[in-house]
Amino acid sequence: MPAEFHTQRKIEFADTDMAGIVHFARFFVFMETAEHQFLNSLGASVSTEYDGDKIGWPRLSATCEYRSPLKFEETVDIYLRVARKGVKSMTYTFEFKRDETLIASGKVAAACCICNPGEKIRSIPIPEDLAAKLSETNSSP
Amino acid sequence: MPAEFHTQRKIEFADTDMAGIVHFARFFVFMETAEHQFLNSLGASVSTEYDGDKIGWPRLSATCEYRSPLKFEETVDIYLRVARKGVKSMTYTFEFKRDETLIASGKVAAACCICNPGEKIRSIPIPEDLAAKLSETNSSP
Amino acid sequence: MPAEFHTQRKIEFADTDMAGIVHFARFFVFMETAEHQFLNSLGASVSTEYDGDKIGWPRLSATCEYRSPLKFEETVDIYLRVARKGVKSMTYTFEFKRDETLIASGKVAAACCICNPGEKIRSIPIPEDLAAKLSETNSSP
Amino acid sequence: MPAEFHTQRKIEFADTDMAGIVHFARFFVFMETAEHQFLNSLGASVSTEYDGDKIGWPRLSATCEYRSPLKFEETVDIYLRVARKGVKSMTYTFEFKRDETLIASGKVAAACCICNPGEKIRSIPIPEDLAAKLSETNSSP
Repeated sequence: MPAEFHTQRKIEFADTDMAGIVHFARFFVFMETAEHQFLNSLGASVSTEYDGDKIGWPRLSATCEYRSPLKFEETVDIYLRVARKGVKSMTYTFEFKRDETLIASGKVAAACCICNPGEKIRSIPIPEDLAAKLSETNSSP
Repeated sequence: MPAEFHTQRKIEFADTDMAGIVHFARFFVFMETAEHQFLNSLGASVSTEYDGDKIGWPRLSATCEYRSPLKFEETVDIYLRVARKGVKSMTYTFEFKRDETLIASGKVAAACCICNPGEKIRSIPIPEDLAAKLSETNSSP
Repeated sequence: MPAEFHTQRKIEFADTDMAGIVHFARFFVFMETAEHQFLNSLGASVSTEYDGDKIGWPRLSATCEYRSPLKFEETVDIYLRVARKGVKSMTYTFEFKRDETLIASGKVAAACCICNPGEKIRSIPIPEDLAAKLSETNSSP
Repeated sequence: MPAEFHTQRKIEFADTDMAGIVHFARFFVFMETAEHQFLNSLGASVSTEYDGDKIGWPRLSATCEYRSPLKFEETVDIYLRVARKGVKSMTYTFEFKRDETLIASGKVAAACCICNPGEKIRSIPIPEDLAAKLSETNSSP
């Protein structure tokens, strides 16, 4: 089993829409923030410099399946797993749960890139020290 | 070839993030609004009443693949196609283009539901008159 | 000195815009959520029922002055004070600080209303038990 | 009377919250986009370069008074006026109307700044050619 990172968030009023539930696009923000918290938990950040270049993680793809609505002031558990650690990209899966109820599951793939202002974004291999930290989380027992 | 609906939007400042490009979650809002404009073009709305019940379209799944960044004040063409018209759900695909450049492609599936306030959301067959309108758009030559 | 409620939040990627700082409209979401956390701290919620009616707090006005930019992954302290407890409305002031640096200050006035679905929103006196809780927070020493 | 710029927007689903109306923070996004459309109408942009520096307009203050709710799929008229053209800043006022109904009125002050990536933001006098264009809009007796 791959390593798992857990976080929570409490639904805010601005997360909801007129259907009275969390707007479906917000789940992608929740996934992204969980990913950043995961990187923080490794002592890394999604926004770093490496050899004078700004490193960023533009998204390659994002998907979410919705199972049960999520409401204002509910607290949702978010479970992140490293689904795949590539040379130049990471793929994460996410599960959203309220107690035992599955709310949604999602997947995000992001490419490691040099994102210097004014330059064209270009993908690079994940810098070694970050790659090493990410590998540790992925060591199945 | 299925019928196609076309719309455009110009990227707003609040659509961007610190990477200087449209935040990836915004594409899902753009897809949803294109879907609503498509329904409007049929003389329908995503938010209607039917036999005294409020009809809504909670999302079953949403996915997006990102190919090229989109920037502030750029105008993006959005092409919606009906990928599948089910008895109780609709699946739409989307292409985002800036001139000839493919920016992103996406897919959204939504279930036709009774969404009365205070009641549990429950799926229903798409009401006949709306189903008829949707069928016409889907008539392949 | 009026009672003060304190909360914090860490800036998320989606809070930022292409200027590399928190988008100015997000501060209003931050104020609203702080207000709701304050109500929660009193054992109340912004979204309640009272005698079978749904109570809500539509905003009458909102204002913010921006002093210093706020960036991704920074943690901001938010201080809420009850500026005025009216019969039918509440006015809150907010201070945003990063360490000793004043980031922004704001004010929000909200009216206590019956917000039943399908009915016209109408303002009402703040229900007694909530009014009592709010008064206690306002008791200057 | 000062010159006036008019624009419209149709309310999207993601603009709404669980109260069934446009979330109050969205009005600030609407004001900002109207401001950018106004600058576009002068042949300018909020995001320009001048003598090799990136010019931006960080907000100094923003305020909104809410009079009447705004709902999904309603079209709102937005009227922008130049309230004050300073040496280093602009102040705009906004009126939101649905037909003859006043929905909200707001005010935004923004400072002309050099916003080069990696540098501290610093305010500057509005560049002459833009200042000239802005003056013309304001020159009514």
